[in-house]
Amino acid sequence: MAGISSDIEHQIEPSGGNGMLNRRIFLEGALISGAMAAALSPGEADPLSVPRWSTEPGAPFTPYGQPSRFEKDVVRALPPPVNPATPGIGVARTPIAALDGIVTPSGLHFERSHSGVPDIDPEQHRLIIHGLVKQPLEFTMEALSRYPRVSRIAFVECAGNSGALNAPQPQPLNAQAIHGLLSCSEWTGVRLSTLLDEAGVAPTAKWVLAEGADASGMSRSIPLAKAMDDALVCLYQNGEKVRPSNGYPVRLLLPGFEGNMNVKWLRRLKLVESPVMTKDETSKYTILLRDAQAWQFVFPIEVKSIITRPSPGFPLRGPGFYEISGLAWSGRGRIVRVEVSADGGASWAEAALQDPILPKALTRFRAAWNWSGAPAVLQSRATDETGMTQPTRAQFAAERGLRGLYHYNAIASWRIDEKGEANNALG
Amino acid sequence: MAGISSDIEHQIEPSGGNGMLNRRIFLEGALISGAMAAALSPGEADPLSVPRWSTEPGAPFTPYGQPSRFEKDVVRALPPPVNPATPGIGVARTPIAALDGIVTPSGLHFERSHSGVPDIDPEQHRLIIHGLVKQPLEFTMEALSRYPRVSRIAFVECAGNSGALNAPQPQPLNAQAIHGLLSCSEWTGVRLSTLLDEAGVAPTAKWVLAEGADASGMSRSIPLAKAMDDALVCLYQNGEKVRPSNGYPVRLLLPGFEGNMNVKWLRRLKLVESPVMTKDETSKYTILLRDAQAWQFVFPIEVKSIITRPSPGFPLRGPGFYEISGLAWSGRGRIVRVEVSADGGASWAEAALQDPILPKALTRFRAAWNWSGAPAVLQSRATDETGMTQPTRAQFAAERGLRGLYHYNAIASWRIDEKGEANNALG
Repeated sequence: MAGISSDIEHQIEPSGGNGMLNRRIFLEGALISGAMAAALSPGEADPLSVPRWSTEPGAPFTPYGQPSRFEKDVVRALPPPVNPATPGIGVARTPIAALDGIVTPSGLHFERSHSGVPDIDPEQHRLIIHGLVKQPLEFTMEALSRYPRVSRIAFVECAGNSGALNAPQPQPLNAQAIHGLLSCSEWTGVRLSTLLDEAGVAPTAKWVLAEGADASGMSRSIPLAKAMDDALVCLYQNGEKVRPSNGYPVRLLLPGFEGNMNVKWLRRLKLVESPVMTKDETSKYTILLRDAQAWQFVFPIEVKSIITRPSPGFPLRGPGFYEISGLAWSGRGRIVRVEVSADGGASWAEAALQDPILPKALTRFRAAWNWSGAPAVLQSRATDETGMTQPTRAQFAAERGLRGLYHYNAIASWRIDEKGEANNALG
Repeated sequence: MAGISSDIEHQIEPSGGNGMLNRRIFLEGALISGAMAAALSPGEADPLSVPRWSTEPGAPFTPYGQPSRFEKDVVRALPPPVNPATPGIGVARTPIAALDGIVTPSGLHFERSHSGVPDIDPEQHRLIIHGLVKQPLEFTMEALSRYPRVSRIAFVECAGNSGALNAPQPQPLNAQAIHGLLSCSEWTGVRLSTLLDEAGVAPTAKWVLAEGADASGMSRSIPLAKAMDDALVCLYQNGEKVRPSNGYPVRLLLPGFEGNMNVKWLRRLKLVESPVMTKDETSKYTILLRDAQAWQFVFPIEVKSIITRPSPGFPLRGPGFYEISGLAWSGRGRIVRVEVSADGGASWAEAALQDPILPKALTRFRAAWNWSGAPAVLQSRATDETGMTQPTRAQFAAERGLRGLYHYNAIASWRIDEKGEANNALG
């Protein structure tokens, strides 16, 4: 394998320490010779042996398809049952390390439920707009579907995602367990501003209370400016109707804002003068700081990135070429740069960003690495179009301390050992 | 409703005959007052009544989620069984009229199978590159996953899609039945050029035979230029591994080329001097013309568009505002313009194109229409970045006649009756 490694280094110039290679391999293609494929003699290659499944008819058509049975382990990680009476409280995490691209299949979209997934009949469900409006309105789902629609690809991230890293000692967790409260879909719905314009917002209204129809009555106060900007009342997710666990038949999408504000099973929007101080914005979703202070109403997700591969459970198999792959996102706009380090932050190589690069959506990045076989620490660092860059863990802790669970966006690290196994590390 | 209609016309300027409105409603938003929502008195709106599902805990988490039980009819349309011994031969069509956005959920991606869906064990499956190469190569799926990857959103359309319109009389079919052999996914894989470079293509090689591992041995000859351009050997579809019905564990993607060439369950690529003339490119997938001639090897899908809503089974419910929604695509690049007519082609209004507009991907278009309640004929007409525009049905028939099943891309029509029902019509 040493020969293969040096072959690669002859073909692709280095772009950082410890084996990081130039990203042009993703933009232009490059020769990765002899690294992974097995050479065959002509006699082995023609005629080919015929496998069993080429000799018998395959399965018939199905109305709604499912993944291969060989992918049965690519599923959401469910929470341990806390209280048998309330099995639907908690989170189910997306297996981000087993996925590629930016779209999360709807069956694997993360879930955060405060009282389980309601089984809502769309014929009976109503959305109400009331409070400080000229005319309170009631929408059936049929009526909602009559308005002009827009689609956009957007991420949703739980405010508590990656909170496990804000701890004194690294915990033996994988990417799904640490970072799996993150998903990205194509959402389609009606601009909230269209509906609010029809109700006629009173000049005194400055906030909107959004309430869900689940048994927790999940509620958040949303600034009117966001409601009138890019908020969507969503009916569709990845082409089909929004999934039950994501708010069927209708959910709010506040692109870039922390997940819980994107209220699922949306049943009412009440225009109000000031924040309502619901249980969900006082008992939770405030950011504890180092001292006795806390931040409330920190809405947009800060710029962030994670390496999904390699990661714990997705090891390297011998020295040589590897793609380091991951996701970057910002609640404030587009990602403009992701850098990857293979030496714990001593040097950085620019990663290739996969088109399309969309605002408030996941962006897939890829970096080329020639692993020597020695231990290494992999990190990624994203910058968004507002100029914000991820802080180091030390910088993050210096500002906020280690008590907070929410909005953790510091640079994350995987430590690669000499066997190629990845482990969570505090960089 | 007459008052509401005239309200809309006061707010949004006309942009074509028979009620077509300016597309700025989608780009900037607009007031659609009083058309669809029900007005409430303050007493009705506060406090709201509490539905049953708000009073009891919801369902627990699930490892892999499914659509709501209320969406059980949004499924693929299966073929009638032709031969009980071969239930997997034929097509299953995507319910395109029930979807929005551009992503097709993988469970609803159309299927075209020539001998059913093989149940392939990825540990045993191999991809071979052989023929006119310096070194034949064999790839395990593990080895393939080591190469640099790219992702792209691309449509796949069966060559026979919409062929039902190339008939002397209009058949009573809906959008799914006529146009449902069309889907769009985010695909992720390895550039075929990367793998061919490693094998070393001989100067005499000009074509590539691609063969599937299904029992039909589905095979097509592909120009080397396409293989070296944007062809992908795909491992992932919409984030997760390619679905069995779409080629698990590995399929070929030839962006923009007719569906059958995107060989599923890919088992070998043989470099050859000239087309192999497989059964699948001689007995099928040639385009019959008006005379005794036929075209062979017409690979890219021509520019095309369809209106998905309104359409048969998705009727209008009374006069007033409607979004006319549909899909446009071209195998030659980006869509640059879609026009919509509500008067059978006498006048055309420019539709809004939903970002992102990607080459060789579906593009969602939306047009604003104020339906008077009178019968109307709806049509859409797309133009791509090469300057190609869809022909009328008469122009298409004048060139190719009415015998061909493949590559039908003429302007399609829905006739709206005074009840708001849509029916297939030959424009």
